[in-house]
Amino acid sequence: MNISHVGEFGLIEALKKYAPVSKNVFKGIGDDAAVLPFSKDKYLLFTTDMLAEDAHFTRRMKAEAIGHKAMACSISDIAAMGGLPTFAVVSIGLPKLTPVDFVRNIYKGMARVSKQFNVNIVGGDTVKSDKIVINVALLGQVEKEYLVTRSGAKPKDWIFVSGHLGGSLASGRHLTFIPRVAQARFLVQYFKPNAMMDISDGLAGDLNHILRMSKVGAKLWEETIPRHKGATLKQALNDGEDFELLFTLPAAKARRLMQWQAGRKAFYFYPIGEITANAEQIIPSKGHAHF
Amino acid sequence: MNISHVGEFGLIEALKKYAPVSKNVFKGIGDDAAVLPFSKDKYLLFTTDMLAEDAHFTRRMKAEAIGHKAMACSISDIAAMGGLPTFAVVSIGLPKLTPVDFVRNIYKGMARVSKQFNVNIVGGDTVKSDKIVINVALLGQVEKEYLVTRSGAKPKDWIFVSGHLGGSLASGRHLTFIPRVAQARFLVQYFKPNAMMDISDGLAGDLNHILRMSKVGAKLWEETIPRHKGATLKQALNDGEDFELLFTLPAAKARRLMQWQAGRKAFYFYPIGEITANAEQIIPSKGHAHF
Repeated sequence: MNISHVGEFGLIEALKKYAPVSKNVFKGIGDDAAVLPFSKDKYLLFTTDMLAEDAHFTRRMKAEAIGHKAMACSISDIAAMGGLPTFAVVSIGLPKLTPVDFVRNIYKGMARVSKQFNVNIVGGDTVKSDKIVINVALLGQVEKEYLVTRSGAKPKDWIFVSGHLGGSLASGRHLTFIPRVAQARFLVQYFKPNAMMDISDGLAGDLNHILRMSKVGAKLWEETIPRHKGATLKQALNDGEDFELLFTLPAAKARRLMQWQAGRKAFYFYPIGEITANAEQIIPSKGHAHF
Repeated sequence: MNISHVGEFGLIEALKKYAPVSKNVFKGIGDDAAVLPFSKDKYLLFTTDMLAEDAHFTRRMKAEAIGHKAMACSISDIAAMGGLPTFAVVSIGLPKLTPVDFVRNIYKGMARVSKQFNVNIVGGDTVKSDKIVINVALLGQVEKEYLVTRSGAKPKDWIFVSGHLGGSLASGRHLTFIPRVAQARFLVQYFKPNAMMDISDGLAGDLNHILRMSKVGAKLWEETIPRHKGATLKQALNDGEDFELLFTLPAAKARRLMQWQAGRKAFYFYPIGEITANAEQIIPSKGHAHF
């Protein structure tokens, strides 16, 4: 049996089995970032993301954009927990004949988005490999009261997304997206979502993670799902790589958020459905399969 | 120009240029691990290591041993700073047709050495790639008074290594080595080395890092360098992947260490040379070139 049969989640289960977690880990494998002890008031967040040539990017793409994406994916994971990113270490695997400028521009793209979000790149590893591989491991911090995981969604919560979905890969948006740190911090400070994550594999598949971990179901108001120009509903549900926030709020808070944002331009959060008590009610998903 | 011309250190310089580091980072790029703010008494350590198929391992090797090595390299980095490892995140890139058992056994090898050194694997990323790539990012902690970096070597310090060198790749030892955490902790608690690192690229090349960062030179007592059976002096100097500790101690402490370990069996540290004031006095190195 090879891994295309068990898929990513089968592998994660295997890793969990071999990696039992001690009691001082607040959240281990299975959320956007691990939640670790830090101080009286704060948790440490820890996440890792790998991008591989010809799976996630090609050399015809702009090297700066590749670097941007590698760092922005990890920043998005920290945002999805309600936190702020702090320190990153970067590993790069490079074929012998990679042009130096290509590598410099990967760093440049990484450094630019890091600066924008106050991330310090504090270490790295550079190794030889057959194709380009980039790994960013990122730390963050979150006030204990602001932490949001995937597992807190409650029946009758409204489901929201932070922006338009669909067509991210085809349009190149997956290389230039801005991680939703400001939106996530606004939410945890003023509305405290019950559950939150970022959309990387596709709305349908990612919402199912929240449903499974929260032991609830969901109904989507399909017409209300905000789609990028030209994207079909199916694409909005399944394309992935949108890196928008997906979160749930109790109905009363949801109405307050709708009121708050009426007429405002800074952020807009789109209500797209409702959590149900029926845990069987999951979303039909053809989300991005990793293998 | 491609990267085989500038080499790993050229790339690290490029990364440093694009990644200026804020003042609350005690040590950034250029030591075995980054040293970050944590608590009143402790620093947080942060390191990353990537292993790529056909550069660092092949599929004919035991998958468990590959997993062991991937985690042990990072643990060795934390030990080299005087610290204890705590939490790891693991990214794995896998070709579509990788046998599931091979992946499980990589995890198993990783989990076993993690358990031995109280490391918790708290997260990961699994992606598609053309060849197998493994990245381990590891956190650790060190009491501020116990931190040792590469830059503190002083003239007249003795130079020590924690074990035999040479032939690690040819013998397969690079896949089974035990990171020198216990030795490093003993040293920082009772002898506080002036400088320390682990030997990954080869004694000669790695000692030069200490010399350059400490602005000193060195004389090696070549006959005293402990070599694995069958390894020549040249191999002991240049093979690399030994993952032994390399450290310097003021002469008085060095003599005290020699006295302490006379007749003891637990650890043995081998004196192999002396630091000199002449910063030109570097070690001729044909160390492992990454590209």
